Amino acid sequence: MIGFIGLGIMGSRMAENLIKNGYDLVIYNRSKSKADKLLASGAKWAESPKEVAKNSKIIFTMLANPEVVENTAIGTDGFLSEMSEGSLWVDCSTVNPSFSRKMAEEAQQSNIRFLDAPVAGSKIPAENGQLVFLVGGNKEDLEEVRPMMEVMGKAIAYQGENGYGTSMKLVVNLMLAQTMAAFSEAVNFGESMGLDKATVVNTLLNGPTAAPFLNGKKEKIMQNEYDAEFPLELLQKDLQLVSKTAYESNVAMPIANLTKEIYGLAKQNGLSKEDFSAIYKFLSPKN
Amino acid sequence: MIGFIGLGIMGSRMAENLIKNGYDLVIYNRSKSKADKLLASGAKWAESPKEVAKNSKIIFTMLANPEVVENTAIGTDGFLSEMSEGSLWVDCSTVNPSFSRKMAEEAQQSNIRFLDAPVAGSKIPAENGQLVFLVGGNKEDLEEVRPMMEVMGKAIAYQGENGYGTSMKLVVNLMLAQTMAAFSEAVNFGESMGLDKATVVNTLLNGPTAAPFLNGKKEKIMQNEYDAEFPLELLQKDLQLVSKTAYESNVAMPIANLTKEIYGLAKQNGLSKEDFSAIYKFLSPKN
Amino acid sequence: MIGFIGLGIMGSRMAENLIKNGYDLVIYNRSKSKADKLLASGAKWAESPKEVAKNSKIIFTMLANPEVVENTAIGTDGFLSEMSEGSLWVDCSTVNPSFSRKMAEEAQQSNIRFLDAPVAGSKIPAENGQLVFLVGGNKEDLEEVRPMMEVMGKAIAYQGENGYGTSMKLVVNLMLAQTMAAFSEAVNFGESMGLDKATVVNTLLNGPTAAPFLNGKKEKIMQNEYDAEFPLELLQKDLQLVSKTAYESNVAMPIANLTKEIYGLAKQNGLSKEDFSAIYKFLSPKN
Amino acid sequence: MIGFIGLGIMGSRMAENLIKNGYDLVIYNRSKSKADKLLASGAKWAESPKEVAKNSKIIFTMLANPEVVENTAIGTDGFLSEMSEGSLWVDCSTVNPSFSRKMAEEAQQSNIRFLDAPVAGSKIPAENGQLVFLVGGNKEDLEEVRPMMEVMGKAIAYQGENGYGTSMKLVVNLMLAQTMAAFSEAVNFGESMGLDKATVVNTLLNGPTAAPFLNGKKEKIMQNEYDAEFPLELLQKDLQLVSKTAYESNVAMPIANLTKEIYGLAKQNGLSKEDFSAIYKFLSPKN
Repeated sequence: MIGFIGLGIMGSRMAENLIKNGYDLVIYNRSKSKADKLLASGAKWAESPKEVAKNSKIIFTMLANPEVVENTAIGTDGFLSEMSEGSLWVDCSTVNPSFSRKMAEEAQQSNIRFLDAPVAGSKIPAENGQLVFLVGGNKEDLEEVRPMMEVMGKAIAYQGENGYGTSMKLVVNLMLAQTMAAFSEAVNFGESMGLDKATVVNTLLNGPTAAPFLNGKKEKIMQNEYDAEFPLELLQKDLQLVSKTAYESNVAMPIANLTKEIYGLAKQNGLSKEDFSAIYKFLSPKN
Repeated sequence: MIGFIGLGIMGSRMAENLIKNGYDLVIYNRSKSKADKLLASGAKWAESPKEVAKNSKIIFTMLANPEVVENTAIGTDGFLSEMSEGSLWVDCSTVNPSFSRKMAEEAQQSNIRFLDAPVAGSKIPAENGQLVFLVGGNKEDLEEVRPMMEVMGKAIAYQGENGYGTSMKLVVNLMLAQTMAAFSEAVNFGESMGLDKATVVNTLLNGPTAAPFLNGKKEKIMQNEYDAEFPLELLQKDLQLVSKTAYESNVAMPIANLTKEIYGLAKQNGLSKEDFSAIYKFLSPKN
Repeated sequence: MIGFIGLGIMGSRMAENLIKNGYDLVIYNRSKSKADKLLASGAKWAESPKEVAKNSKIIFTMLANPEVVENTAIGTDGFLSEMSEGSLWVDCSTVNPSFSRKMAEEAQQSNIRFLDAPVAGSKIPAENGQLVFLVGGNKEDLEEVRPMMEVMGKAIAYQGENGYGTSMKLVVNLMLAQTMAAFSEAVNFGESMGLDKATVVNTLLNGPTAAPFLNGKKEKIMQNEYDAEFPLELLQKDLQLVSKTAYESNVAMPIANLTKEIYGLAKQNGLSKEDFSAIYKFLSPKN
Repeated sequence: MIGFIGLGIMGSRMAENLIKNGYDLVIYNRSKSKADKLLASGAKWAESPKEVAKNSKIIFTMLANPEVVENTAIGTDGFLSEMSEGSLWVDCSTVNPSFSRKMAEEAQQSNIRFLDAPVAGSKIPAENGQLVFLVGGNKEDLEEVRPMMEVMGKAIAYQGENGYGTSMKLVVNLMLAQTMAAFSEAVNFGESMGLDKATVVNTLLNGPTAAPFLNGKKEKIMQNEYDAEFPLELLQKDLQLVSKTAYESNVAMPIANLTKEIYGLAKQNGLSKEDFSAIYKFLSPKN
């Protein structure tokens, strides 16, 4: 059986795709109610992370942040202590690179193998098995879980040693934030000159500068309503992580740091819980 | 015969595509040497803009900036004075919206019809007939030249009244500038964390944030050599135009204005004449 | 008699100081009501700019922007045409350097001497004769009006040829804008950490980074009320002038351009008519 | 006897002022050679931080960063373990607020009183007893050391509870960084328009926007040589601390974050070890 811990917006959909494709799953989530649908689909419930570890040689985790990952994996209640030697832990959570390396070391001390494998893509790609896995760790370990990743995602991008999957995830989220903000300024600019909003959006989306993910934001911007797929405050948190990591890596990022603060201003103005595409609304002269 | 004035990197390739598709062209360029290839393909040379006007009811212009357009079209030496009533002038140059509107008025005073029709795309798309025309003016006038645009481009995006084609072109170039700079910061960030440059570039280019035009910049960034398709200083000039227009239109654009200045710093550091993708080099800790 | 044209917030106070110190003034303003107090103090009213010119060999102008200066000085209704040869025009308006040079040329064509002499300082320093004159033009011409400037200001900073007074004024207003915005971020930062607002403000105002003008903004920030001495939208206009001039002068100014847009965002959020120190309110998480 | 630990550029000058004013000092520094001058002035050498603690009821520390403070104060080799109950530790190092609070707690567990008392001012003010102390902690404890601070500084600004002295220090250093960068852009802007560099600098330094500390940077900028009083990379480190703290305190600081990165670009371009006023050189078109 495959273990899966963390059944939020992303994790539940990823687990569903594993089940649909014939994998037997043992699952755990802090609040059990989120597991109902998966249990109905045949997954087995574990009462704790440790119980997951007793029943599986491969565990996927998809958790909210480093603190939750640490609490779930390490210490007296952590599942690492119950995993059998040679097992494989695949962490799909978005964390920071040094944390992934620390988890890799913790795992290694118990002779557990570790992959950091965060994903690019949000709710809809998770549902449709269209995620992109960004993987750091041992290449052979990746081969072992490749078939599972292939039912959850459309691409697997191997980045190198442990921590590098997580590093690449920061790069991708940085590009998401920048592209969304630039697009928002551009559409507002077009409108301010008198252009029709839909015409601007459509021309851009069919032109040479159109990042594919922007298609998924089109309706939000046209309706000016921002149900959260990826809440603005979470992206801003990732940008802070980018800023900190960039400082430590000795690279200057003027535009990234400004963009971070523009999202910060949006947050100050009450948009924390909306989708990060609400940056359009914050930047709009009409709001 | 169709008139074509302005045979630089873009204009010569656009004219070539017209000839290839059976159109008879009368052409003019300030320096005649740039016309050699087209003349060999069968175009007819005109000794002045006015002479072009005497021989054609439709004139395309593709010139460097508003000053050159104005000098070529207006005044005692300008072609407008020689165009017959009811003729159509299609200006594909990148200018500012108020200038396009001014040209439309000048044309109208001589009963000449006018379209502002700048293009998205640079050297290679011009060569391959893959440009996108952004068109402002009368819709019926557009229909008249649509067949010609279709052999030079892959798409025609009608934006509304005169000036709006040019407005949309500013929006597109803004997105070009922002996307290139954001991509450059992102790749440098990845490298600073130890990721392999090619892996970062390829992962991004195959991911949800990949603007199509970035594929054309991949080799430049990988080689760190920046033969100009679109010189950095010209893009910075467009950004200044964006900034000025945004001020006049009462819309704040913090990220756009910063990006403009980052290109400005690159210019101060000697990169004016290189392709605008050289912003990667400027932002790189290794340079 | 000395001519004085333009009796707004600044001009009326400057003229008052001239009268108080014994100068005979002939004055003009578009709306006569603003002249009442000065007329009561003994100034003579002129029905037009031209009539001012007929009665004086030295004219000071303190007008809102280049358009108003141009309309007042040049053309059939302009005072330049009525000034006697060898007269001296001192323009204290805040304009752009190339405009000042243009006015100098216009004046010279009528054998009128010209000084651009904008001032640093707003309402209160104008009232107290504490302005700083930033002067461009001929040094001997400056000596001629120095006694008058000394009753309106506390310092006279000669900058060089015509246009350079205006250039220096842009530099000063840039520093005003930057300092105010930086101070605002700093105070908000202190408060966000739990520090007492008054303590932060006082500590900064008594420390090594305290620009003198900030003392005059202290009460506004403490009360969070922003009666305009220098409206935010006018400073933002000056920043746009800075940005344009910097582009033409080939110097990159990343922080200045961002600051301009932060004021722009404040304007979008309804603070145009308040004092520019209202940038504190815009940046505050509590607003 | 008063203990003094940390005898770098700042600490040695502060200690010298204590000795000059009649205080008996017991001193320690990692490298003893820096203590020579003070020993010649009558200070007593201690072989370790612990030995300082055995000989004094009041200890001042002036150390490079949180790590050094922690190693010096805490753990088996730390001086806290040797201080007698009721003693007072005054930490003048620049650290982050949460670290100061942590030190206060550590001290309290040993019944030691603690003040965080970082200083505004660099080498010359330290030498001349012109520092400004920014103090967090118990007000009575401050009164106890006020006489000592008064011989080292010209002002003592009490900020509130422990950590708030350090918080205010971050605010001050932020203003230093912003003001220096804004001044640098402004002077470069003036020069780009043709103004004389010295005239611009002098006009600004005598005007309403002149922060007092800028006088001390005048010669560096005029000579374009930047012997470090406050190395650029240390200020950039403080800005990173500001950025992190601001994120945690939920306040957006767009200009501060950009300024941080402009210093970062200067660092990338080889200016790490120069005085932070070298930002002028980085931003200059002539460099």
